[in-house]
Amino acid sequence: MSTQPKALLFDVFGTLVDWRTSIARESEQVLKPLGVAVDWLAFADAWRGEYQGAMDQVRDGHIPFCKLDILHRRNLDRILPRYNISGIAENALQYLNLAWHRLDAWPDVAPGMARLRRRLLLAPCSNGNISLMVDLARRNGIHWDAILGSEIAGDYKPKPRVYLASCAAFDLAPGECMMVAAHSKDLQHAAACGLQTAHIARPNEHGPGKGEPAPKIPVNYTASSLEHLAEQLGV
Amino acid sequence: MSTQPKALLFDVFGTLVDWRTSIARESEQVLKPLGVAVDWLAFADAWRGEYQGAMDQVRDGHIPFCKLDILHRRNLDRILPRYNISGIAENALQYLNLAWHRLDAWPDVAPGMARLRRRLLLAPCSNGNISLMVDLARRNGIHWDAILGSEIAGDYKPKPRVYLASCAAFDLAPGECMMVAAHSKDLQHAAACGLQTAHIARPNEHGPGKGEPAPKIPVNYTASSLEHLAEQLGV
Repeated sequence: MSTQPKALLFDVFGTLVDWRTSIARESEQVLKPLGVAVDWLAFADAWRGEYQGAMDQVRDGHIPFCKLDILHRRNLDRILPRYNISGIAENALQYLNLAWHRLDAWPDVAPGMARLRRRLLLAPCSNGNISLMVDLARRNGIHWDAILGSEIAGDYKPKPRVYLASCAAFDLAPGECMMVAAHSKDLQHAAACGLQTAHIARPNEHGPGKGEPAPKIPVNYTASSLEHLAEQLGV
Repeated sequence: MSTQPKALLFDVFGTLVDWRTSIARESEQVLKPLGVAVDWLAFADAWRGEYQGAMDQVRDGHIPFCKLDILHRRNLDRILPRYNISGIAENALQYLNLAWHRLDAWPDVAPGMARLRRRLLLAPCSNGNISLMVDLARRNGIHWDAILGSEIAGDYKPKPRVYLASCAAFDLAPGECMMVAAHSKDLQHAAACGLQTAHIARPNEHGPGKGEPAPKIPVNYTASSLEHLAEQLGV
């Protein structure tokens, strides 16, 4: 049996925040007054659809590491022509790009995190950059002990370095840390690095019924919410 | 006139925490039961006395960057023979070395930080490593937005890279950040990088009357406590 972890490392997009409806809302708020009319949820899906491919450029060494904000902007510039959107002022595009800093957390996150924090160190181990994590924490009332993840590792998950650098920043062995995510692939790679794993069900991440209701791989804990995880950890 | 900063970057040792009496107390707690009898404040001063020289090895490129915890341990190993201390078990030495994670904040820090946090982003820009900052924050009730400073920069203050990497992590220009420290030298280097500066008087840092009661260089703000700084910033 695995021992109680000392730190929880969290995936953020999808696991803690509902990026899809938030990006749809933010995109509509910026672009609709400028005369753009599109399916905003589809627009959010298209923007997110460029996510893995953009990070692959870094993971595969084709381009040096850069903050996710930079990749989000490149991805935005790729999808705008696809929607026949042009002529948007640069400051509006910059504000739109920071929509990823204005995502709302799932309702269980604030109370669940507060409870987990009583006994465990908490940090994001996300592909989002530090400033993005800071803004999401302020917006959603999350108290992180430190912001770990891609920017301190200089690479993107699921590269082992990102998980391992996050554990090392806390001076903890991988087995003393638990990765918490709504995505089996993320947990599979964390487990391969020696971390404990907890799966949080976010069945509606990609739209109603379009998420992972349960892990597709063996994990240490399966929870329906952060509060459910806290309960199982006895916190 | 400089504009209101968006983020405060804090020096920690001396500025926020009273390392001297804390290290004396922790050293006595570990070593006295093992039969060691020395002047504990002098012991703390001797340990701290090795601090700059150890970091110079990194700053000058003689050794690769490593966490301050590692340098603290080397410094401890250097001073023990000077005090004729030997035969201490390795686990006791490791626990003693982590005395730097168990420092107490000056009394104004917890209320002052809570007040400053209402309107400003807060991060340490310290030479201490991430885990050390995390432990000090937990112990002293400090809510950081992120842990910045030496470990994310891979070098030690006052190298410009450390100040600049901390601003960049927040996506802020140096002029939008204010370095807060009890040491004129730290502030001088921060100002050279374009940061705003605030001096906090810690007149007893190195013992009664042995600290900086006032800045030795021009700064944007001079304060007797964090609450005094908050008052001046209108927070």
